[in-house]
Amino acid sequence: MPAAGMGVRLGPGGPKALRLLRGEPLLVHAVRRVAAAPSVGCIVVAAPPDAVSDVEALLAPITSGPAGVVVVAGGATRQASVALALAAVPASFDIVLVHDAARALTPPGLVEDVASAVRGGHGAVIPVLPVVDTIKRVDSSGAVLGTVDRSSLRAVQTPQGFRRDVLAKAHEAAVDDHTDDAGLAERIGVAVHTVAGAEAALKITRPFDLAIAELLLS
Amino acid sequence: MPAAGMGVRLGPGGPKALRLLRGEPLLVHAVRRVAAAPSVGCIVVAAPPDAVSDVEALLAPITSGPAGVVVVAGGATRQASVALALAAVPASFDIVLVHDAARALTPPGLVEDVASAVRGGHGAVIPVLPVVDTIKRVDSSGAVLGTVDRSSLRAVQTPQGFRRDVLAKAHEAAVDDHTDDAGLAERIGVAVHTVAGAEAALKITRPFDLAIAELLLS
Repeated sequence: MPAAGMGVRLGPGGPKALRLLRGEPLLVHAVRRVAAAPSVGCIVVAAPPDAVSDVEALLAPITSGPAGVVVVAGGATRQASVALALAAVPASFDIVLVHDAARALTPPGLVEDVASAVRGGHGAVIPVLPVVDTIKRVDSSGAVLGTVDRSSLRAVQTPQGFRRDVLAKAHEAAVDDHTDDAGLAERIGVAVHTVAGAEAALKITRPFDLAIAELLLS
Repeated sequence: MPAAGMGVRLGPGGPKALRLLRGEPLLVHAVRRVAAAPSVGCIVVAAPPDAVSDVEALLAPITSGPAGVVVVAGGATRQASVALALAAVPASFDIVLVHDAARALTPPGLVEDVASAVRGGHGAVIPVLPVVDTIKRVDSSGAVLGTVDRSSLRAVQTPQGFRRDVLAKAHEAAVDDHTDDAGLAERIGVAVHTVAGAEAALKITRPFDLAIAELLLS
């Protein structure tokens, strides 16, 4: 779980994953929910390098299976952080989920659905929601080129789940920084499967999203 | 402004446009904001046929220019309601905006931007927002076919603005019910222009959207 991103979109106040929701950092909300999924036996958090011990202290009360919660120093990019976290996942785990701490209210049931679909034989699994808005394709001047058939479009959430070897190969083959691990798997020819996402798994990036998250908790 | 749609997605309690937000029907919120746009000289509301006098009473306190607010009986489909409303717009108006009462908090400034772009020479104008999620195209089994370049995608809002003759021709040429008037204009070869939409113009269709709308008002 990369949590090393700086919270530029949430305004000043430190790394995005440490912004408070109901008095607790988003990261704590996220990790607690992931830890509650029965399939999750180990959680690795990539933290900002200067915040590793603080994050360890924050997450100390949360345990997940025999391997527990591990905090590693993240890299300069999201992709580097995912790779560093992956390297710290004990070798006994052959299914790896990549999550975003900003999706702090992701229900444990969704985490389980993703893990379960990978266990069922899919090399790469993503949770998705239908696209409800009418969608147009535009050119650089803002002129409409056409209406896109939204029935075949899906908005992607996390956690994204992978067979460990698939995620490792996808990252080895990547040439620049990516925010979409499933996209890296697609590039190396791996079939990506979808499962139904959850409204509660929204990405909390703006102050307004924090207010929506408060609403979901109430 | 078609307000004849039944509120199937908001649950029981009458037509969607009459659901209450802070004690006032969504329709009243929507009409009040549209009436506050300086360019709007007349508002025609297509109401459920059995609710015309009730809707007239609701909207009586709101006035818009010399032509005021007019309520007509809507049709069996959204498209029929738009056509009936269009027929009731006084002939002196050569710019027509089509709005959705469910986008009850659309700011007057956005209404003005759309009208202004039509006045500036565009035959059809829609407000749009960037697509922030990663978007995949899937097949009917839920397998991912590929990642869509979201930088050229836009989510469409209302009001959509038209030169009156463009909207009339687009509706004449339409063969089945549509929820996207700009799409009808595209089909007859009219260039559709985009302006920046607004988060506040969200479509209020589910109970959760009502809660978000309350939040926006607070």
